[in-house]
Amino acid sequence: MSERRKRFRKRRPPAGAPPGAFVVPEQAQAPRIHVIEYTADRVNEADLTDPEALQAYCDSKGTRWIDVQGLGDEKVLSRIGELFGIHPLAMADVVNVPQRPKVEEYEEHALVISQIAELRGSGDVEFEQFSMVLGSGCLVTFQERYGDPFDPVRQRIRQGGPIRRMGADYLMYALIDAVIDGYYPALETLGDSLENLEERIFARPQPGALRDIQHIRHELLQFRRVVRPTRETVNALLRESRFICDAVRVYLRDCYDHTVQVMDVVETYRELASGLMEVHLSRVSNRTNEVMKVLTIVSSVFIPLTFIAGIYGMNFEFMPGLRERWGYPATLASMVVVAAGMLYYFWRKGWLGGDDRGT
Amino acid sequence: MSERRKRFRKRRPPAGAPPGAFVVPEQAQAPRIHVIEYTADRVNEADLTDPEALQAYCDSKGTRWIDVQGLGDEKVLSRIGELFGIHPLAMADVVNVPQRPKVEEYEEHALVISQIAELRGSGDVEFEQFSMVLGSGCLVTFQERYGDPFDPVRQRIRQGGPIRRMGADYLMYALIDAVIDGYYPALETLGDSLENLEERIFARPQPGALRDIQHIRHELLQFRRVVRPTRETVNALLRESRFICDAVRVYLRDCYDHTVQVMDVVETYRELASGLMEVHLSRVSNRTNEVMKVLTIVSSVFIPLTFIAGIYGMNFEFMPGLRERWGYPATLASMVVVAAGMLYYFWRKGWLGGDDRGT
Amino acid sequence: MSERRKRFRKRRPPAGAPPGAFVVPEQAQAPRIHVIEYTADRVNEADLTDPEALQAYCDSKGTRWIDVQGLGDEKVLSRIGELFGIHPLAMADVVNVPQRPKVEEYEEHALVISQIAELRGSGDVEFEQFSMVLGSGCLVTFQERYGDPFDPVRQRIRQGGPIRRMGADYLMYALIDAVIDGYYPALETLGDSLENLEERIFARPQPGALRDIQHIRHELLQFRRVVRPTRETVNALLRESRFICDAVRVYLRDCYDHTVQVMDVVETYRELASGLMEVHLSRVSNRTNEVMKVLTIVSSVFIPLTFIAGIYGMNFEFMPGLRERWGYPATLASMVVVAAGMLYYFWRKGWLGGDDRGT
Amino acid sequence: MSERRKRFRKRRPPAGAPPGAFVVPEQAQAPRIHVIEYTADRVNEADLTDPEALQAYCDSKGTRWIDVQGLGDEKVLSRIGELFGIHPLAMADVVNVPQRPKVEEYEEHALVISQIAELRGSGDVEFEQFSMVLGSGCLVTFQERYGDPFDPVRQRIRQGGPIRRMGADYLMYALIDAVIDGYYPALETLGDSLENLEERIFARPQPGALRDIQHIRHELLQFRRVVRPTRETVNALLRESRFICDAVRVYLRDCYDHTVQVMDVVETYRELASGLMEVHLSRVSNRTNEVMKVLTIVSSVFIPLTFIAGIYGMNFEFMPGLRERWGYPATLASMVVVAAGMLYYFWRKGWLGGDDRGT
Amino acid sequence: MSERRKRFRKRRPPAGAPPGAFVVPEQAQAPRIHVIEYTADRVNEADLTDPEALQAYCDSKGTRWIDVQGLGDEKVLSRIGELFGIHPLAMADVVNVPQRPKVEEYEEHALVISQIAELRGSGDVEFEQFSMVLGSGCLVTFQERYGDPFDPVRQRIRQGGPIRRMGADYLMYALIDAVIDGYYPALETLGDSLENLEERIFARPQPGALRDIQHIRHELLQFRRVVRPTRETVNALLRESRFICDAVRVYLRDCYDHTVQVMDVVETYRELASGLMEVHLSRVSNRTNEVMKVLTIVSSVFIPLTFIAGIYGMNFEFMPGLRERWGYPATLASMVVVAAGMLYYFWRKGWLGGDDRGT
Repeated sequence: MSERRKRFRKRRPPAGAPPGAFVVPEQAQAPRIHVIEYTADRVNEADLTDPEALQAYCDSKGTRWIDVQGLGDEKVLSRIGELFGIHPLAMADVVNVPQRPKVEEYEEHALVISQIAELRGSGDVEFEQFSMVLGSGCLVTFQERYGDPFDPVRQRIRQGGPIRRMGADYLMYALIDAVIDGYYPALETLGDSLENLEERIFARPQPGALRDIQHIRHELLQFRRVVRPTRETVNALLRESRFICDAVRVYLRDCYDHTVQVMDVVETYRELASGLMEVHLSRVSNRTNEVMKVLTIVSSVFIPLTFIAGIYGMNFEFMPGLRERWGYPATLASMVVVAAGMLYYFWRKGWLGGDDRGT
Repeated sequence: MSERRKRFRKRRPPAGAPPGAFVVPEQAQAPRIHVIEYTADRVNEADLTDPEALQAYCDSKGTRWIDVQGLGDEKVLSRIGELFGIHPLAMADVVNVPQRPKVEEYEEHALVISQIAELRGSGDVEFEQFSMVLGSGCLVTFQERYGDPFDPVRQRIRQGGPIRRMGADYLMYALIDAVIDGYYPALETLGDSLENLEERIFARPQPGALRDIQHIRHELLQFRRVVRPTRETVNALLRESRFICDAVRVYLRDCYDHTVQVMDVVETYRELASGLMEVHLSRVSNRTNEVMKVLTIVSSVFIPLTFIAGIYGMNFEFMPGLRERWGYPATLASMVVVAAGMLYYFWRKGWLGGDDRGT
Repeated sequence: MSERRKRFRKRRPPAGAPPGAFVVPEQAQAPRIHVIEYTADRVNEADLTDPEALQAYCDSKGTRWIDVQGLGDEKVLSRIGELFGIHPLAMADVVNVPQRPKVEEYEEHALVISQIAELRGSGDVEFEQFSMVLGSGCLVTFQERYGDPFDPVRQRIRQGGPIRRMGADYLMYALIDAVIDGYYPALETLGDSLENLEERIFARPQPGALRDIQHIRHELLQFRRVVRPTRETVNALLRESRFICDAVRVYLRDCYDHTVQVMDVVETYRELASGLMEVHLSRVSNRTNEVMKVLTIVSSVFIPLTFIAGIYGMNFEFMPGLRERWGYPATLASMVVVAAGMLYYFWRKGWLGGDDRGT
Repeated sequence: MSERRKRFRKRRPPAGAPPGAFVVPEQAQAPRIHVIEYTADRVNEADLTDPEALQAYCDSKGTRWIDVQGLGDEKVLSRIGELFGIHPLAMADVVNVPQRPKVEEYEEHALVISQIAELRGSGDVEFEQFSMVLGSGCLVTFQERYGDPFDPVRQRIRQGGPIRRMGADYLMYALIDAVIDGYYPALETLGDSLENLEERIFARPQPGALRDIQHIRHELLQFRRVVRPTRETVNALLRESRFICDAVRVYLRDCYDHTVQVMDVVETYRELASGLMEVHLSRVSNRTNEVMKVLTIVSSVFIPLTFIAGIYGMNFEFMPGLRERWGYPATLASMVVVAAGMLYYFWRKGWLGGDDRGT
Repeated sequence: MSERRKRFRKRRPPAGAPPGAFVVPEQAQAPRIHVIEYTADRVNEADLTDPEALQAYCDSKGTRWIDVQGLGDEKVLSRIGELFGIHPLAMADVVNVPQRPKVEEYEEHALVISQIAELRGSGDVEFEQFSMVLGSGCLVTFQERYGDPFDPVRQRIRQGGPIRRMGADYLMYALIDAVIDGYYPALETLGDSLENLEERIFARPQPGALRDIQHIRHELLQFRRVVRPTRETVNALLRESRFICDAVRVYLRDCYDHTVQVMDVVETYRELASGLMEVHLSRVSNRTNEVMKVLTIVSSVFIPLTFIAGIYGMNFEFMPGLRERWGYPATLASMVVVAAGMLYYFWRKGWLGGDDRGT
């Protein structure tokens, strides 16, 4: 099954299953739990394997970030959900990846789904779901695979900057901001591909151009499917959420601004890619035109000449000129005249010009 | 009459007929009535043939699901409508299938129309209307043909999960959820067809590609005509309905989310299919270009050579070289030079390269 | 002046004329007035020629339907307008056909403009304006030509169904419903044309396909110009009108639903017709491709052979093989080899396959 | 500088100039002032040259229409602005033509900008700004050139119809109505051009078709740029303006309806013109296809025949048949067989049919 | 890295960096600070190098314009931010250029981002961010490079026009107005390019047309990315801003009107450019068609003639006519008849007409 096909294939419980059912991914990694608890004064970090150990963090006073990586164990996940009072529907959205980016508010907490962009070596982008459950003083995050782009945020917590004086909502903002910042390098790679492709198409038609345009369009389509709901998500958090305090709103506004900017670039790239398809089609037509011109010139010059030669190749006994000394040179001369006339005609039509590069 | 044509052909009473008139489908199956009545403690099931037997369920205390399959008997349907106080316009929408998915609230009940997707063996999708009338404590559902995808829901009722503690509105949610979950496999089949088609078009132009693209576009058009109003229907239920209690709203929100996701995939597929048409057109142009190149190369090489041969085929008495030993080889040599020159010219233009696969 | 051109040519008073000026159509038919007055108990019908006779109906107690067919007499129309207190601007909209479907509320009455679809023998649809003025207890309707699709409604009034117990607003609903029901057969004819056309284009390119696609697109454009404002009109009546009582609103909602359905089909057909244009273009490109292939194969096989023949047609005295017994068969053999090579090349490229039907 | 280029070139003060600066058009005509003052009883008209003479009309009791034609004298215009208390920004919009149609309300008056359509002899439409400043009891209008389409309105004032009993707001309505009525003949000319063009393209491709399509599209683009804001302007006047009394609103609603109708026709024409471009492209492809067919048929028939002739033109000493009596007729017969076979092949493919007109 | 690529490349802090981080551009110029302080009576101007000297202007009574050009020194910028109490997120938007045009309101001040259009010698447009921070009585503006288009505004301040009696909000309006006025010449240059290009494409296909269309489309895309958010920005200022007094709103409305006009022109140009692409494609198809016609005519005339010549070049001993005196002239005559027939056929098809310019 191809990468792309997988993207559109939602892992989901069988139709008619009760709401909140889990579908744990095959070959999923076992959950690793990392806890950071901090106040303005202190930071505690711990790696846990047993979810029961989380009980200690359920009601502690500092801000807690429970970071769960790996969705491979249904029991552990259920237990974490119970401990932090996460609604079964929210837990189902966390486990049954991928979901669209969205925010859903429950009584005790808000669920925020986002997608982390990962730039593969091939220049392709892959998205991985990153789910955040924001309760009071506590942020529980989930991710399918190990590894995330949040080390700078952890560093800021350890170093005790302003982030230590803020609550779990600010922590969530910091994570969303890091997720969105991660879209830029991926987009820039796409932009570079687009520009290179345009240069290549103008310079000289090359095999694979069409396939490359399609590939970029697919990537942009996928990007838009992620960024547009992300923008709506941040906007909903900014305008309506009960779980965000006013001091954090101004930061989220900045974040929203970034999603607008990313969306703007995605849409611009989509227009460029569409234009590129037109350019490609136009170039193909042009090349056909050029091929035709060569054929027409060669044929139009030589077919009449061959006809003249054919005339004097006929075996009639009585043909004027065949037995004269001037017959052959005169015929050749008339051929030159005909060829020159044809070439003059084509020259006047402008068909003898150079190549049509970029016409 | 083709399948597709039928879809757009609404069975309807003659123009000017009074509102609420029925048009029972020809060859419709006789109605079968299945009743499930349940409370948290107990479940009763019954198969009825006489609608009068339904009177026992009109005012019973548990939650009742009256499941009517087959629309072939106008009297039975009218009687059911009377027994449960269903508005004549609502009954007309139930019988005169197909209607667009919609919710309409009457004083005593709400009518919800949805469409069940059925995947045929050919990979095509067919939709069948599923109508729900939600009164207080009672859900009456109607379907044109026998057979439905709701067995898992019935199983959940029998097994006594949380669904037994909820009312008829939750039951309706469970059915809508099952309907929407049924869209995913159909969409995935379409997605696979799209991807295979793209591969085929890139690999080697094959007969039928154009027809296949059109077919997929028709299927997606039909899908969108069902999913978009379904999304609006769920949203209207979620936001405005008097017949849904707050506890059920959170589940409907999940359901709405799924319709958004389905719609998103449909729109993405539509863009992919449009792009595929462009790719196909581009491939056809490319092939014409390639055919032209072969013709041009062959003609441009051999027509001048034939001309030279024609010259020496002329029957002039006085032609230099004809009687010399070196005449023939010299002419052949000049032909080789001309052909080589032509080929060099085409090689420099890049026309002698390999195939244009995916250009 | 063609039919289509006429549609876009609004008959209107000269620029700067006072508002409310009439432009009676040339060759318009003389007005015929038919009155139906009914209560739950009785029905009176009358055909009038003198508008003064209408005075008897101005303040009678039953529901009155004044049906005016033919707009050919300015005085009669003005007098009717005066008798029922119709605003001069409303009367101008009634007479200066065609107007867009719309509802306009005046102090004493509401003006509703709709368009009746008439299916001509040629399969084309023509629209005729049908104007309704709804006062209290009284509905005055106007139409340019004789003949309408409302006989079933008249029959229902005569037979004394529920319509007899309702007021003039219900009567207006019944007429609008009949108008909208009349759109379905016209749309179905268009749908059949579309489907047949698609089959024809796929099967074998035929003369006239392009013209037919354009014709259907024009028809659909015209349909949309009528249906979209009709939908808005019914919606405005449903939501805002002071002249519609609540009991009738539920019926109008059903009516609105039909306009949505019709609009949906129109839009779907428009997409199908656009797709058909792409298919047609693609088929033309394909055929060019096929023609090119035949030319290329024939030329590429025979031009080299002719060249070989040309070589041995040269009149050099010293040419090897000319005087040998094996010369001629050897040359023919080499020709067969060349031709076979060429054909093998084309076969490998897949150019020798069958026809490209539906490629 | 071409006509079109001028349209997009706003005459404007240099960047950074203070707001309200005038840019009097070069070669502008000197202002002519015509005043009509009327009450229900009397009408006074006067042609003024000195703006000071306007003081008499500043506070008179009747309704006053100050009609200024020609924008060539900055001082006169400024003085008029002062006398009637027109805001400097409003005066700048009046003088610095062209502006988009719009309504702007100031404290003492409303500024309404509209565009008069003038049909040139060439069938092209040109727009001229017509600005109205509506104060209480007083309407000041400005126009760049002499001549306007408002004589019927003046006539109605002189003849003492209902217009004499209404205020300056009704006068403004009458002028706007005349402006919008003036769009119809221009649109009809465009519609006729479109229809003729379609006929020509279907009948026989003619030089200039492409240029004509582009020309019509430019005209429609220009029309839309004027009509769309005009519609919004009338709507804003209708819904929000403090300067319009209720009695006049019902007339403005009629006027709004006309703008909707005009806009509807413009959009329909735009779709038709787009469709025409597709038809044109399709026709060009078709003609190429037809040309190709002729080439292919001629070449495919004669190239093999020429090859056969070439065979028997070879100078081998030992060739069967050359010396027999039946050689020549047999060869000719084989040629006829080959040609007939080819023609049969093409006939079966349907390439020998008539022309492709309208395919 | 190309110019265009740079535009889409936002300079930004690394992902996960704390909000408010600066990324000072490499090779940025050192900040130059110019202060203008004015009241209705007096004007003071000063060039400062040390930001501490700004303290004198922090609380002075007049209106102050602090104009900072060059973003090359992080410390100076931070200090300015501190002195005027600018929010760190606002300062980050000022420094991390380019940002989209936007307005963001903080507690003490509003940040307005706009883009100045600079017309390069090549006819291309480049945008430079111009950021304004509007506090009470104080406007701080930032720009990346030296040089701006605001000298006329400075002159108006020095000369003591109405601008001197207004506050900092009016000053900001004057600057925004100058920025927007600067879009017109750039747009006009684009419009001229478009028109020239259209003329060139119609007159005679020239190399580079395709590239030029793409270039203009890129420029228009970039323009739209700037103008659309600018329009929203001015609208937001106009409708919601707490920092704008009512007297200034009427001027901002004028300004908003200009952005609407600019946007309108941009959209119109985009449509023209799209149409141009279609025209270009159509012209290429036409030229192919014309080339084909020449080829077909020449081939169809001469290939049959060559065949006839080939017949009489055959070496059969017994061929009628070869030894007669009339043989040769008769053959030539038959050739003339064939050629004339072919030419008549092409003439009747209209293929022998003049060039297809603008077909």
